[in-house]
Amino acid sequence: MAGDLLKDLKRRVEAIIPQEVNVSFVEFEGPELVIYTEDPKKFADNGDIIRSLAKDLRKRIVVRPDPKVLIDPEKALEAINEIVPEEGGINDAYFDPDTGEVLIEADKPGLVIGKYGETLREISRNIGWTPKVVRAPPLHSATIKNIRDYLRSEKDSRKEFLRRIGQKIHREPSAKDNWIRITALGGCREVGRSSFLLSTAETKILIDCGVNIGSDNNISPYLYIPEVSPIDSIDAVVLTHAHLDHAGLVPLLFKYGYDGPIYTTAPTRDLMVLLQLDYIDIASKEGSKIPYSSAIIREALKHTIILNYGEVTDIAPDVKLTLHNAGHILGSAVAHFHIGQGMYNVAFTGDIKYERTLLFDPTVNNFPRIETLVMEATYGGRHDFQPSRNEAESKLQSTIKRTIERGGKVIIPAFAVGRSQEVMIVLEDTVRKGMLEKIPVYLDGMILEATAIHTAYPEYLNQSLRNLIFHKGMNPFLSDIFVQVDSSSKRQEIIESDESCVILATSGMLNGGPVMEYLKNLADDPRNTLIFVGYQAEGTLGRRIQKGWKEIPFSSGGRTATIKINLEVITIDGFSGHSDRNQLLNYVRRMRPQPSKVILNHGEERKCLELANALRKKLKLEAIAPQNLETVRLV
Amino acid sequence: MAGDLLKDLKRRVEAIIPQEVNVSFVEFEGPELVIYTEDPKKFADNGDIIRSLAKDLRKRIVVRPDPKVLIDPEKALEAINEIVPEEGGINDAYFDPDTGEVLIEADKPGLVIGKYGETLREISRNIGWTPKVVRAPPLHSATIKNIRDYLRSEKDSRKEFLRRIGQKIHREPSAKDNWIRITALGGCREVGRSSFLLSTAETKILIDCGVNIGSDNNISPYLYIPEVSPIDSIDAVVLTHAHLDHAGLVPLLFKYGYDGPIYTTAPTRDLMVLLQLDYIDIASKEGSKIPYSSAIIREALKHTIILNYGEVTDIAPDVKLTLHNAGHILGSAVAHFHIGQGMYNVAFTGDIKYERTLLFDPTVNNFPRIETLVMEATYGGRHDFQPSRNEAESKLQSTIKRTIERGGKVIIPAFAVGRSQEVMIVLEDTVRKGMLEKIPVYLDGMILEATAIHTAYPEYLNQSLRNLIFHKGMNPFLSDIFVQVDSSSKRQEIIESDESCVILATSGMLNGGPVMEYLKNLADDPRNTLIFVGYQAEGTLGRRIQKGWKEIPFSSGGRTATIKINLEVITIDGFSGHSDRNQLLNYVRRMRPQPSKVILNHGEERKCLELANALRKKLKLEAIAPQNLETVRLV
Repeated sequence: MAGDLLKDLKRRVEAIIPQEVNVSFVEFEGPELVIYTEDPKKFADNGDIIRSLAKDLRKRIVVRPDPKVLIDPEKALEAINEIVPEEGGINDAYFDPDTGEVLIEADKPGLVIGKYGETLREISRNIGWTPKVVRAPPLHSATIKNIRDYLRSEKDSRKEFLRRIGQKIHREPSAKDNWIRITALGGCREVGRSSFLLSTAETKILIDCGVNIGSDNNISPYLYIPEVSPIDSIDAVVLTHAHLDHAGLVPLLFKYGYDGPIYTTAPTRDLMVLLQLDYIDIASKEGSKIPYSSAIIREALKHTIILNYGEVTDIAPDVKLTLHNAGHILGSAVAHFHIGQGMYNVAFTGDIKYERTLLFDPTVNNFPRIETLVMEATYGGRHDFQPSRNEAESKLQSTIKRTIERGGKVIIPAFAVGRSQEVMIVLEDTVRKGMLEKIPVYLDGMILEATAIHTAYPEYLNQSLRNLIFHKGMNPFLSDIFVQVDSSSKRQEIIESDESCVILATSGMLNGGPVMEYLKNLADDPRNTLIFVGYQAEGTLGRRIQKGWKEIPFSSGGRTATIKINLEVITIDGFSGHSDRNQLLNYVRRMRPQPSKVILNHGEERKCLELANALRKKLKLEAIAPQNLETVRLV
Repeated sequence: MAGDLLKDLKRRVEAIIPQEVNVSFVEFEGPELVIYTEDPKKFADNGDIIRSLAKDLRKRIVVRPDPKVLIDPEKALEAINEIVPEEGGINDAYFDPDTGEVLIEADKPGLVIGKYGETLREISRNIGWTPKVVRAPPLHSATIKNIRDYLRSEKDSRKEFLRRIGQKIHREPSAKDNWIRITALGGCREVGRSSFLLSTAETKILIDCGVNIGSDNNISPYLYIPEVSPIDSIDAVVLTHAHLDHAGLVPLLFKYGYDGPIYTTAPTRDLMVLLQLDYIDIASKEGSKIPYSSAIIREALKHTIILNYGEVTDIAPDVKLTLHNAGHILGSAVAHFHIGQGMYNVAFTGDIKYERTLLFDPTVNNFPRIETLVMEATYGGRHDFQPSRNEAESKLQSTIKRTIERGGKVIIPAFAVGRSQEVMIVLEDTVRKGMLEKIPVYLDGMILEATAIHTAYPEYLNQSLRNLIFHKGMNPFLSDIFVQVDSSSKRQEIIESDESCVILATSGMLNGGPVMEYLKNLADDPRNTLIFVGYQAEGTLGRRIQKGWKEIPFSSGGRTATIKINLEVITIDGFSGHSDRNQLLNYVRRMRPQPSKVILNHGEERKCLELANALRKKLKLEAIAPQNLETVRLV
């Protein structure tokens, strides 16, 4: 069947391209149709061929050289170095004879690519190999290096996997019914363990698979109900972003027998691995149940297919997926699905920020079509209005100033990913502009590593940061005010020193991580300050301290001690990566086209219901807040 | 496991009963715990033992003699005939050595049972065998005879089946989650193919499995979705009543691999078999697709466990079922479920009549507890008020009179089950009281057979009919105005005769059946009258004629002809077996206790939505009208 389909596609390719161009064979690899040719130069010479093939065949097309025409790697590397200007900074090049690709790691990928891809095409013409360029990160990221090494070592089984998935995606659909449904598996009327099943009679897609960190029970989405059984009946997993409440239990799927693809952005893939490894590391240190091994994290990684924002991609015979910027954290995406014969469109926001932040552009709310929107409601409550970004910045500034004046230290618990970098950019900017004296900003936990991943994907940052980095050569993440804490002796030194400083440490909700060490030792000194810059979920220590608890029981070396909370506690809301109520309402109000139905999740029950009410009354939309385990039919 | 449980139960039985009473062994048979004993007389002497065992063990208890103590069947029969008064009219007795039961078929079962079961106990004391009494129907029903013969022939495999189901019902529950959900598989926002899945983490129960007769597509409930896959993951099927839109596709479940029990009343079981056989017979005559064979209907029959109204029965470790009178047709039931640890209660009305009719008492609306009510909405629309029963009767009377006066014939298309008997009772009553001249009432299709089944279960009729039959010895169904049509020559004779008459014939919505033959031949004569007494679903010929179509294309002997509708067309609403809007609202308003949530089904979309609206506004209840394929969570 797949063989016949490929034969037919080869014939259609040959009918479209100029007669003198040879096609050796065609092959599905994941969502892409790969054309192998002895004449890669001729394809490379004519950028239009691929575009017109993609348009005619309605598939994503990749052209690769037939292995026969590849020149010797050593000679090829010489040629590459001749073609690319020295400022491109080529660090490394890896040749993969199976795909005919050479992966070039460069300081400035733009110079390897050239205007409209001209340099890349020249390389291709000269060496036969298809060049792919990745950025050499300015901060070294062990995560990224490990991921790249691992994927290289697994290239054979990955190729086999991509071929299998490709054939599955491009099969003839067999279902007769046309319904489309959404089942809430987790994260509805609650924050945590986000997971939806989007299903048609043909296809099952899991959107996110998060963990409920703050909860003792109800940790996992409902993965054992008939709708998702057996687990390998799922066709694809799509991840909106890397935070654990959205991607923390993805490896569990593989542990239970899932063997299909995960679609997400490259930064999400890398951040996800970082956060998952940290999650099981913390669990093991705390002696709590470890849900999966690092081997399973690698298994999930091997099954990840990365997509760029805006790429329309077949992920099933009846479903096309497009990811769009969500403005929440690096690589975060709104997942837009265009579904089958019924021509129905539904988008899942994941977590969204509908406001320009220091890091990201505001989330996208224009789609070719959209009938149903599934939207987060974290701050959807009647009174959930956040201060402006300016107010938040000046409150942070004045709080730090006040703390310095009384000789205290500032602890900022933060998610390693997102809030930390946002706060780093504010601090760097404030210090650089002389509005705050230059004090050290200690980064503890995985914050530096997460920052390194940010520097590897500057194209995911907002326009002004990209300008600063690409055109002014100024990368604020590289400022010398940031000091990595890499040992417990260093931590002790910071705690004991008299010097004022800012400590940015994980976890963000005070449920574990190095921030606990600082809190234990600095909480009883009223000169110090604890600043919350992110959402504190119900059930976490962060939420308790926010509520005004003054004594916190603590187990330490087997004994239970009590920490007195004497330090100043401040919440600064404006740094949230979430939209506030106004932003959520405006996001929907200004959405083009208008959806007819909005399904709310990712918010406490009251907030979901209040936002649904507002959407019905103010925008005259059908708005519902399903419970977990409920199924809503769209068509 | 089951063995241990039974050992333990035997010990508990022995601890409760008097020491001198022997217990040979105990066994699960379906939902019942059967105690085999060498001393059945001692149990029989003391009616309280069984009641107190049932109370203490919280199980339905049946006592049977140990096979060792059974006396010779011939001698036993002599003894029975001596004990029972001759007026009891014992026709037949069948001894089953496996169960130690003797099935006694009598004209007057009451005389075999005796006051408070005294006669039955005396029989038991004398012969060892456990007597069970069934009524010898006053009209011979081939259906009932075939069913009884078949079940006797299958007693071994049925015993094995009951043992297996018994052990499954009484297993230790293993699920940890406590949720309860309802999934709409069919019959929501439509009339036809009624089917719900009621599920907990432990148990799946299918309520009804109907067919959409009026539809070309969407004939079947959604039985292929993950929630009910594989089909043998269903633990039990519960049927509210026998109509095809509720029970027509039950055999399909067995065709696809279901092997579990069907719970329903005895009349529903018999009527269901009658209607299913007729359904496949019509399909075969029309050359349309036959969904299942008669062998599969028998398979379903073998799996049916009958329950009386009001019997609380374990059907799963976490679910108890009680059936209550629904007032709709013979044996129709509201299915009340009492669920597990959460102590949650939900009732499914099936189709209900909340008004005393000529045949039945009004449906029950008092339950020990109820949180959610799933209710039909056939006549739930804003303007769906029906005339009173009296108005309907006098309209029927005057219409027939008018037709007789002009020398015409009256055609009444009717469901064989329900409306036919209702109309028969009105006609018999009107003629007997001299308010209508004595004209023949022809019964065509399965109406006489369905009526025979009604005469076999007079205890399911209303109080005044029971009085008439039991105490006055007057059974209106036996009146000589009713004439069975049993051949096409008889049919032709009726059509060609000049004599006025009433023709009561199936099907009720003019989509097939013998009524078509009458319509074809009598429709163009304006002296004749067509009277609709039941609901005409969208898409049926009945609905089209109601809407005023004057020409009906018809295929006859390969050619397409046109029938002119010149006869008088009258709709008389008051005979409906469904509650009208007022009755539906009153049914909920007067329900004790009040449910907190009402889920509506079995009505066109607009009617479901309008009734939901009324329930919210007038009764301040949460009311929803889910779509097929949606899942609602109760807990």
